[in-house]
Amino acid sequence: MTNIRDIAKMAGVSVTTVSRVLNDHPYVKDDKREAVLNAIEKCNYQKNINAVHLRTGKTLLIGIVLPFSDHPYFTLLIKGIAQEALKQNYKLVLFQTNYQESKEIEALDMLKHKLIDAVIICSRICDWSIINEYTQYGSIILCEDTRGKKVSSTFIDHYKSFLFALDYLYKKGHSKIGYCIGRRSGTNSQQRELAYKDFLKKINVPFNSEYIFDDCLNFEDGEQVINQIKTMNTPPSALLVTSDQVAAGIVTCCQNQNISIPDELALIGFDNQPISEYMNITTIDIPLVEIGRKLFIQAFQEYITNEEIPARLIERKTV
Amino acid sequence: MTNIRDIAKMAGVSVTTVSRVLNDHPYVKDDKREAVLNAIEKCNYQKNINAVHLRTGKTLLIGIVLPFSDHPYFTLLIKGIAQEALKQNYKLVLFQTNYQESKEIEALDMLKHKLIDAVIICSRICDWSIINEYTQYGSIILCEDTRGKKVSSTFIDHYKSFLFALDYLYKKGHSKIGYCIGRRSGTNSQQRELAYKDFLKKINVPFNSEYIFDDCLNFEDGEQVINQIKTMNTPPSALLVTSDQVAAGIVTCCQNQNISIPDELALIGFDNQPISEYMNITTIDIPLVEIGRKLFIQAFQEYITNEEIPARLIERKTV
Repeated sequence: MTNIRDIAKMAGVSVTTVSRVLNDHPYVKDDKREAVLNAIEKCNYQKNINAVHLRTGKTLLIGIVLPFSDHPYFTLLIKGIAQEALKQNYKLVLFQTNYQESKEIEALDMLKHKLIDAVIICSRICDWSIINEYTQYGSIILCEDTRGKKVSSTFIDHYKSFLFALDYLYKKGHSKIGYCIGRRSGTNSQQRELAYKDFLKKINVPFNSEYIFDDCLNFEDGEQVINQIKTMNTPPSALLVTSDQVAAGIVTCCQNQNISIPDELALIGFDNQPISEYMNITTIDIPLVEIGRKLFIQAFQEYITNEEIPARLIERKTV
Repeated sequence: MTNIRDIAKMAGVSVTTVSRVLNDHPYVKDDKREAVLNAIEKCNYQKNINAVHLRTGKTLLIGIVLPFSDHPYFTLLIKGIAQEALKQNYKLVLFQTNYQESKEIEALDMLKHKLIDAVIICSRICDWSIINEYTQYGSIILCEDTRGKKVSSTFIDHYKSFLFALDYLYKKGHSKIGYCIGRRSGTNSQQRELAYKDFLKKINVPFNSEYIFDDCLNFEDGEQVINQIKTMNTPPSALLVTSDQVAAGIVTCCQNQNISIPDELALIGFDNQPISEYMNITTIDIPLVEIGRKLFIQAFQEYITNEEIPARLIERKTV
């Protein structure tokens, strides 16, 4: 790729001179200007629009921080963000962190250095105090409850929706209820664990850590869950499964092993992904595309807003 | 966000003066320089790294052109691209085109204007002649057979792999074979149609356009296919399904409607996505993550390469 240095070499002038010509600076001699313009013409050099960005202070790029780009939960969020971005001529810059703190900070540093206009953090690993430091540099939007903090957010009340689903299973006769979670240490997961423990206290059932299945993210993790359950003396009779992908994996595994759903094991998935509809999985609808759209809009609002999106139960055939 | 204009206002100087201070330009009076530096300090303004990019000619951004970001085919490609990008400290800029020509050209224009260092086109709508015009501006990589053209590519020989799958079904006793395709007009689809027609000639069976099911992209499209087949007097006894998602939808729909697979309908999926393994779908393995990785590496090679990736059949339970 031709850069300003190549042009300078071709024209036999300094880089500073090329820069002055590009920026219509007055202190350039005519013959040097001519040489630079000829060199530019010769190699089809386009004036770098980054120079324009310097003037407007806008890059029309928005950073998206997410652990993986190949999970339906995140691809649906991205879909919503992309829909709004398209309307406003913004491009998405993906920061796939694999939950490495340093990768998250890289996105925040790009905001600080004006390389992107805003950052949407779909799921974070960094402590809030770190993110808080960066709020002075530009718009940071989160997909979790940030009420009382200095950033906008669109979120599901995971405590409330988890408790609702647990109560629903209890009313259907279940008291041995376990759950599958993607990353137990996550912010949303902590709210869910709190709801779970409060629910157990309410129905007077002791907490059993065996009933929490961690690292459940994909279809194939469903089989792991069933294998674990089969080794238990007192297996759960119902599971909340925080991803429909995992719930679909559990249903498929149960079909292969002749475990009857919902008689032997009841299931509630989360997200209402297309697969849950086609596999008839009862699920908690989380409108991820809508949430994605709202996150983008919030990124360019002048005031801070925190919007809670209601989740709702969709009754199908697995409870 | 504070920009150069705000700084100029605060310091009581012109934008040009601020620019000169930021670029360590000699022709600035000391008192003006001091005023600018004070203003910058006051509002935490970071020197825009875009200025650095002007000097190095690199943005460390790579454009990814794809029709949708929420389909497993593309998310697996992105996963591979992202893995390599992570290693080389590049960020992905997504251009979600929905197969609109203008959106594809926007990515090419950003390459032309040096806003991104390279473009990977995962699936294109633009005619080759348009893309060809932009090859002079930087690295453009395609995910289709571009042998003989001036761009690098990593690709599957879709003619060969389609023909192989058709022959396999024929050997298993099928001669009424149809296929499901995402977008019949696409470059890869045209190769597949050619293979299909050549195969029919070889086995002496007339072409029946009813046997081609277009617009099959997602899980839910599987039901449509089955509904169409049920209206036919002479339905196909086997289908090639160019996405495992659609194949999974067909399997699920057949289970619900008590259509026996493979006895009443045999299926071969494509991609070898995780769902095909767990639903025991015979499929053509296309190593999308590996292809994604190679596409990224090609973007920064100094010479043009065209690499064919072999596809292979994975025998499971649907043929």
